[in-house]
Formats: sequence, structure tokens, C-alpha cells
Amino acid sequence: MLKNLMPNDHWIAHYNKDFLKSDFSAGLIVAIMLIPQAMAYSMLAGLPPVIGLYASTIPLIIYALLGSSRQLAVGPVAMVSLLVFSGVSTLAEPGSDQFIAYALLLSLMVGAIQLSMGLFRLGFIVNFLSHAVISGFTSAAALIIGFSQLKHLLGIKLEGGKNVFLLLFDAFQKIGIINWITFAIGIGSIIVLIYFKKKFPKFPAPLLVVVGSTLVVYFFNLEERGVSIIREVPGGLPAFSLPAFSVDSITALLPIALTISFVGFMESIAVAKTIASKEKYKVDSNQELTGLGAANIVGSFFSASPVTGGFSRTAVNYQAGAKSGLASIITALLIMLTLLFFTDLFYYLPNAVLAAIIMVAVFGLIDVKEAKHLFRIKQSDGWVLVITFFATLLTSIEAGILIGAGASLLLFIWRSAYPHTAELGYIEEEDIFKNVDRYENAKMFKDTLVFRIDASLYFANLAFLEERLRKEISDKDAVNRVVLDFSGVNAIDAVAIDELEKLIDEYKEAGIEFHLAHVKGPVMDLLKRAGWKEKYGEKIEYLTLHQALQPSRGSFHVS
Amino acid sequence: MLKNLMPNDHWIAHYNKDFLKSDFSAGLIVAIMLIPQAMAYSMLAGLPPVIGLYASTIPLIIYALLGSSRQLAVGPVAMVSLLVFSGVSTLAEPGSDQFIAYALLLSLMVGAIQLSMGLFRLGFIVNFLSHAVISGFTSAAALIIGFSQLKHLLGIKLEGGKNVFLLLFDAFQKIGIINWITFAIGIGSIIVLIYFKKKFPKFPAPLLVVVGSTLVVYFFNLEERGVSIIREVPGGLPAFSLPAFSVDSITALLPIALTISFVGFMESIAVAKTIASKEKYKVDSNQELTGLGAANIVGSFFSASPVTGGFSRTAVNYQAGAKSGLASIITALLIMLTLLFFTDLFYYLPNAVLAAIIMVAVFGLIDVKEAKHLFRIKQSDGWVLVITFFATLLTSIEAGILIGAGASLLLFIWRSAYPHTAELGYIEEEDIFKNVDRYENAKMFKDTLVFRIDASLYFANLAFLEERLRKEISDKDAVNRVVLDFSGVNAIDAVAIDELEKLIDEYKEAGIEFHLAHVKGPVMDLLKRAGWKEKYGEKIEYLTLHQALQPSRGSFHVS
Repeated sequence: MLKNLMPNDHWIAHYNKDFLKSDFSAGLIVAIMLIPQAMAYSMLAGLPPVIGLYASTIPLIIYALLGSSRQLAVGPVAMVSLLVFSGVSTLAEPGSDQFIAYALLLSLMVGAIQLSMGLFRLGFIVNFLSHAVISGFTSAAALIIGFSQLKHLLGIKLEGGKNVFLLLFDAFQKIGIINWITFAIGIGSIIVLIYFKKKFPKFPAPLLVVVGSTLVVYFFNLEERGVSIIREVPGGLPAFSLPAFSVDSITALLPIALTISFVGFMESIAVAKTIASKEKYKVDSNQELTGLGAANIVGSFFSASPVTGGFSRTAVNYQAGAKSGLASIITALLIMLTLLFFTDLFYYLPNAVLAAIIMVAVFGLIDVKEAKHLFRIKQSDGWVLVITFFATLLTSIEAGILIGAGASLLLFIWRSAYPHTAELGYIEEEDIFKNVDRYENAKMFKDTLVFRIDASLYFANLAFLEERLRKEISDKDAVNRVVLDFSGVNAIDAVAIDELEKLIDEYKEAGIEFHLAHVKGPVMDLLKRAGWKEKYGEKIEYLTLHQALQPSRGSFHVS
Repeated sequence: MLKNLMPNDHWIAHYNKDFLKSDFSAGLIVAIMLIPQAMAYSMLAGLPPVIGLYASTIPLIIYALLGSSRQLAVGPVAMVSLLVFSGVSTLAEPGSDQFIAYALLLSLMVGAIQLSMGLFRLGFIVNFLSHAVISGFTSAAALIIGFSQLKHLLGIKLEGGKNVFLLLFDAFQKIGIINWITFAIGIGSIIVLIYFKKKFPKFPAPLLVVVGSTLVVYFFNLEERGVSIIREVPGGLPAFSLPAFSVDSITALLPIALTISFVGFMESIAVAKTIASKEKYKVDSNQELTGLGAANIVGSFFSASPVTGGFSRTAVNYQAGAKSGLASIITALLIMLTLLFFTDLFYYLPNAVLAAIIMVAVFGLIDVKEAKHLFRIKQSDGWVLVITFFATLLTSIEAGILIGAGASLLLFIWRSAYPHTAELGYIEEEDIFKNVDRYENAKMFKDTLVFRIDASLYFANLAFLEERLRKEISDKDAVNRVVLDFSGVNAIDAVAIDELEKLIDEYKEAGIEFHLAHVKGPVMDLLKRAGWKEKYGEKIEYLTLHQALQPSRGSFHVS
């Protein structure tokens, strides 16, 4: 059974022991990065820090066995944590036992959805999410996540929920009551983190600020000055338990579970594909879903919140030399050691430092360049990004991605409904037919309209094309023949065939004959099934425009 | 103001008095047909019969002045009546004053929606409803309408709401208590109507069964035998009054008002276009919306339920020789005369006869041939029809059309995401490049893959195309060049450009060069904006495959 779930070309099957050293060092580096992140993202999700550490153990091992990427660093990530908070906080008080129970159920549901999508080979669905949508969504989510940490950074309570503007407004009003020591620790951490990120990207700056701030708080007794700290992190490995569930709670969590399944998978597959193509091996969407699904399901039995592959940790893992899933297994083992022996060390860690780690991580995800790039090439794609961004920021995070996906698909339908067409003329020097509006030397014909349709024909664009064609015909006196260049007609549907047939027959009565050239195989098959071969004969079978125009070659050069 | 709303080429402007006779006779024939239909469709809508007669007066005159069709017979129709019943019966008891008030408000809302769509030139929206959807929806609605009349035909009450199966089941259980005289009158009427429809389609059979059955009920005193009759129809012209409205009622009626606006408009425009193309004049979608919208708005001030152009009455109007909107004005005047002087004559008219008229009218709309036709040409289009049919029958009539429209657009997106591609070979005899799978004499090249993409490139199909291309390249040893035939690439989006660029650069590193031929103007514009001209130079500018392959012409014939 487990064997069937594993990828065909598994790293275990041909593990080279030369890899051992680099896998071990990568595993260690990721563990050092992951410990503060796991606690920070747990806080972001409204969960106790230890849940994030639990999510950094068993799920990593399961993914290493079943996933198809060899470098993907699985674990808690900011986006998924935000989604957990967003979905569960409407059902229970953040931090409460009930909240934790829902979060674990969510892990199980996300795992079940991803695993079934993998087994039923539904990984293709993510192709329908445009990169413009993902980019807009990610930038907005980064802002929401970042500002959700403002309260920890300032050491005060803020009203405004997830609304960035309300949060900022409330923070502005409460500027008099912020805890300046907390704020100083937070801002200091941010400066240190950014400095090292820019100058020494390989240095584990999060560990530095964690250790440094813990020491400062401990020695200066800053807890008594109102600096909020993590306190007790329970030690020991996560125990086995089944998530509690009921039909009601499953129904309530379903929308957020679906969103996490998709968004988590997308974050994962994007980074996994990039690295796989650099390393010249293949990741398979469905195998990735299987791996992540199993990791979440098994994780949910060991008190782990939902996990996925993270952008930045995967990059670090790869750059640190990870060659196989063993690196992740080593990371998991190191986190287990930490859980067993070192949780006491986190007692004096200030929340503001975790907030700083989150903020620096997510603000790097805001991608203004991509928006500019899209606007330069094709404005409408830029607008999809902007719409997704504002929809995510202003409605809810689940609705945002749906609105973006809907907008991008509607845009595609819209474009397909108003396609480009061109009247073609003959260019003698090149012996070729080209758009008369773009090529001045393309000569038109007196009695023949050569018309190229740059679209697959279907119900929604036929009325528009018909109108265009009628206009072209009526603009041209003395036309008695229309040659349609079908080289751009990649597909046709039955409704369009019927309408086109009506049009051709109507013009035939008016003394204008239609000829079709460059009809592609799949389109010809359908035309034949509709009886066009018997009805129109060779008039629809011209392989080239030259063939179709042969009878009037004499008039080729008459403009 | 009114002048601005009128069509440019109005029939009044060049009315020929030779038309007068045929307009008058057509107007009379339609009036004779309309009187029983108006009452029947009113009953179907849950309204008193007189409302249907009111809807056959003022709205007809307004449409004749503002619409662009000269033959369209406006008035109450079965489909819209069903929608009125379906929408309003959830808010008020059918037949009650409150119900009437909602129905009139609905007229106003439908009118306002259609008029604004016309003024803002949104008529194109109907293009997005595939004929397959309309056909499936109409067939299902015809069944729902037909079976909703079963209770009148049997003279009993039936449970089951709009569910055809529940209604039939309930009728079967109550077979012992049906009123056999009512049933005999109903079945007799159906037989007479069908007989004349087949043998003498021009004969006004509905008038015959109305007069005949009224006389039979009157002379044999069948009312006392339990035959349900129309009774009092108030005489006189409709008075001016404003529909009562509140925000709540508008909100509640909005979904049904939108559905009626679309469905009513579609029924209208389809038949108007058919006749206009036969008569060689143009109808304009937006002008039609303006005309119907104004007719509904003004109608709502004179107690008229929502109207639209009906299929069958328009056909009768046209066949009877209507040349202009004057025929409709004459119809309206004749109905007014009826309201003034003849409403008493309807007292003994049995409801079963109106039910028979509805049933015969709507069952003619069930179109099995269209479904077969679609399945023969393209199965998936047939499935869209079937899905719409069952969705309408099993969910609600508004949801049915939405599900159908959604399914047809998803199908289009789906097809676009998995496009056809082909490896091309050279056919020497024809000097042309063709799909090697379809043309046995098309010769492949040793070192070059000629690959045709039959699709516009966008975010949702790029992953699929990339996979196909990678497979083709890896299937071919010794390939060092890929020539992409872009003749089928009608459009491209920014996301696809980025992905394609990555792919080309990646293969370049592996020693495989990409060349693009037949790039269309609009696509080339975008590639240039993305900097491809500077980066790839003439490699993307080949006008033909011949040009792109020139350097290796020597190897043209090597298979």
C-alpha cells in the first residue's frame, strides 16, 4: 500500500552515500531556521508555539518518503497559518483548546482533500490559477499577515480584525499607549534581520535575534516592564491522538480546508518545479499532492497544524546542498531533539521577535515588479493581478482567490468572444497572403474577399464574427466570392457550425460563394460529420489560399 | 427624448399605404389567437385572466413604436409566465392582490433592466448563452409548464410544486377522484387543437375550442357538475397606476427579474432575427432591448404583467402578412375593444380549455431533434444541452439556465486548456507542411521538430503544451532545432509569454534552438513589448515555415 503511494523514481532507491554530508548540513541549517519560524507561524495561526514545532516533525518525514521533490522543505508556512487563523477564529477563541482541536481537524481535512486529489489525478486543476492571480493574492496576503503582527510589535491590543486599514488607523490612535521596550526589541530585530538578509543571506539571523532577545529579556527582567514573552513551551514528543470531528465542524471548515489545500499545494509545486528543473529531475503534480496529503493526515494524528512546502526554507535547503529527502528527515529529528530537551530555553523569547521574523519573511513576498511587468506587456493581465490583490485585501482571503480566478477566466472568455480578424492581400515578392492593414504591399482582390479568422469558433463569438464578416462584404463592391482562411480556427463547436452554415447558404442565395482554406484536421472532422463534405464538396478542402484562389489567379495583382 | 429611443430606420418614416390591408388582417388574426392565449398564460402565471389581456394592449403599442422588428408579436408568453409564477409564488399567494402587485412590480423591474441594457448597449451579453443551453432550457421549461397545467386538465388539486415527477406521481394516486367531465373537455380540446395545428395550421383553433367549450358549459350547466370556469372578467381598459415597491420586494424579486429580462429578450431576439433576415432588414439587439424595456415599463403602469415577443404568434403575424408595427397596434386596439365590450362572454370558459391551449403550445417547444443533432456533431455540445435540461427540470428554472451557461463556458475553457497540437512534415508534391499523423506522405526532419500549436496561449494551457512539447523533443533523437508554427496562436497573454521564454532559454542551454514562424500581428506586438525582438531577433520573425527551415533545406526529404 505505502509502496503504491511512493513515487516511481524514489531517492531512497539509489541513495549515494556521498550525499550524506551535504544532506546532514542542509538538514541542520533548515532546522535552525525552522525552530523560530515554526513558533512564529503558530502564533500567526492563533495556536500555541509548540503546535508549530510538532508540525515540523512527523509531516516532514512522511513527505520525504512519499513526495517527489528531493529538496522541498515542508512545515508550517505563513500563508497557510493565516488561512488557519482566518478559518478557525470564526469558530473558536484563538489559543483555546477548541481552537486547537479545530486546527488539527483542519489538518486532517486538508490531508484528505490533497490525498484524494493526488490519487484521482486532479493536480491539473491548479493550471487554472493564473500566475497573475497567484502574485496578486500572495502580495495581499503578505500585507494582511504582516499587519496582523503589528499588535505584537507594538505590545498593545488592536481592533480591526484582518482589515489592514482599520488596523493601521487603530494603531495610529493608540500611539500613546504602546510598549516602547517591546517596540524597540521588535524594530531592532527587524533591522538585524533585514541587514543580514541583504549582506549575509546565508547567516541564520533569526536564530541570532531569538537568542539575543531571549538573553536581553532574561537579564534585564524585561517581562516585568510589560514585554510579552512566550513562557512555557511544553517539552516532549507529540502524542498520538485522533482529531475530534463532527459533521457540523467538517461542514464549517470545508471552505477553508479547500482553500488551504489549493493554496498550500500551489506554493509547494511552484518552488518544487523550479528546483527540479534546475536539478534535471521531474516532480509530478499528483505525486506532490499525494505526499503533502499523507503528511497532513499523519501529522493531524500527532497534533500538527496544516503544513506545506515553503518558498524560502526550500531555497535555503537547496542552497545548503540538500540532495535528497534525507535532509528533511534530519531536520525533523533535530526538531524532535529540541522538543525533548530544549523547550525551556524559549521561556523568555519575546513575541515581538517572532512578529519581526514573520514581517520580514512576508514583506519580501510583495511583488510590485511583477505587476509592472504584466502591465507593460498586456494591461488586462496586470488588471487581473490588481483585482486579485484588492479583492483579497478588502473581502476575505478565500473570496479573494476565487474572485481573482473568476476574473482571469472571464477575461479569457471575453477575449475569445471578440477575436481579431483580418482581410488578407497577396504579397507578390514573398508569394504570401498577409493582413492588408499591416502590410502595405499586400494587394487586395477585386471580386474576392480573403478573410482570416483568428479564433476558434464557438457559440459566444459567432455573432460578433458574423457581424464583422457582413461589414467587410458590404464594404467591398463587386465581391462574388469569400475565401475564409481557417488557419487560426483551432476548434469549432456544433452551434458555430450551424450558424456558419446558415450564413453561407444565405450569401449563396445573394450570389456570393464561400470557400474555406487551411481547415485543420480536427475542425474538418466535425464539418464532415455535419454533412459539409456532401454539401460543399471541394470548396471546403483547399489546403492553401493559393489553391483556393487559383481560378482567379489572373486578378491576383489587381488592387 | 422618445425620438432618441426610436430606431433609425423606423417603419413609420416610410409607411406605404399598400401595407394597410395586410397589416390589418394580420393584426386581426393575431388578436383572435392572443385573446385565449393571454388569459391562459395569465392563469399559468398565477394571475387573473384580465391581467394577460391588459398586457396585450399598451405594451404592444409601445413596442411597435420603439422596437426594431416589424413583425414581432409582443405580449404574454408561456416561458415568462412560468418565471413570474416561479418567482412571485414564493412571496405571495397566487391570485391574491399582493401577488398581482408583485407581478406588476416585476414588469417595471424587467422593463428597467432591459431598457438600461439597451441604452448601455449590453445586448451582447446574450451571445454568451449557447444555443445548446437555450434549447435544453426551453425543452425542460416546456415540460414544467405543461405538467403545471395537469391539475386544470384533471379538475383536481395536485401536490408536488414544480417537480414534474412528483406531480405525475400525485396525479396517478388521485386517478380515482378526477373530474371526468373536466378531463373530457380538456382532452377533447387538445385533440381538436392538435388536429387543426397539423391539418389546417392557419385556422384559429384556440378560438374554436374557447367558443365551443363555453357554449357547451353554458347550455349543459356543467359548472354545477364541478367544471371549473373563469367567471367574472372585469370589463374596461386598464387604469393608470404606479406599481407599489419597497427595497425588500425589489431585492426579493431581483433574481427572477434578471432571469425574465434575459430569457424574454432571448426568445424575442431569436425570432425577430430570423424574420428580419428573411425580409432583408436589420434588427439591433440594443434597440430590441430598448423597445421591450419601454414596453414593460409603460405596461407596468397599466396593470400589465411582463411581456416579450412570442415565437408562435410572431410566426403567425408574419405568415398572415404583417408588414409593419401597425399590425401589432391593430391587435392591441382589438384587445381593447374586447376589454370594453366582450369580457362577459368569457364567464363560462372552462379552465381546462386554457390548460389545453398552454399544453399544446409548449409541448411543441420540446426539441429532441436538436439534441440528437448536437450529439452527432460534437458530443460535448449535446451534453451541455442534456445538463441544462436536467438542471432546469430538477433544480429551479433560474438555476437551470445558470448551470447550463456555466457548463457551456467551463466546457469552452476546458477545451482551450487541452488544445490539439501536431508535428508537421513536408509534403513535396504540394510544397506544404502538414500533420504527420494525418498525412502519410508528410516527411519529418532529422534534426528539426516542426511543431504546430492549435491554440491561443494563456495561463491555463501552457503547462499542458509545455509537457507535450517536452515529450515530442525527447521522443526525437538528434534534434537541435524546434520550429514552432504559430499560425494557430491567435492570442497570447503575459503569463504565457513569461513561461514560454523560460522554456526557450532552458532548451537553449541544452543546445536546442527555438524558431517561430507565422507569428500573427497582434501576438508579435506583445512579444515585442516583452523584449523578444531584442533577445531573439529574426528567429521569431519568419513569415513562413519555408523561410524558417531554409538553412536546412538540404535535409528536407530525410525522414
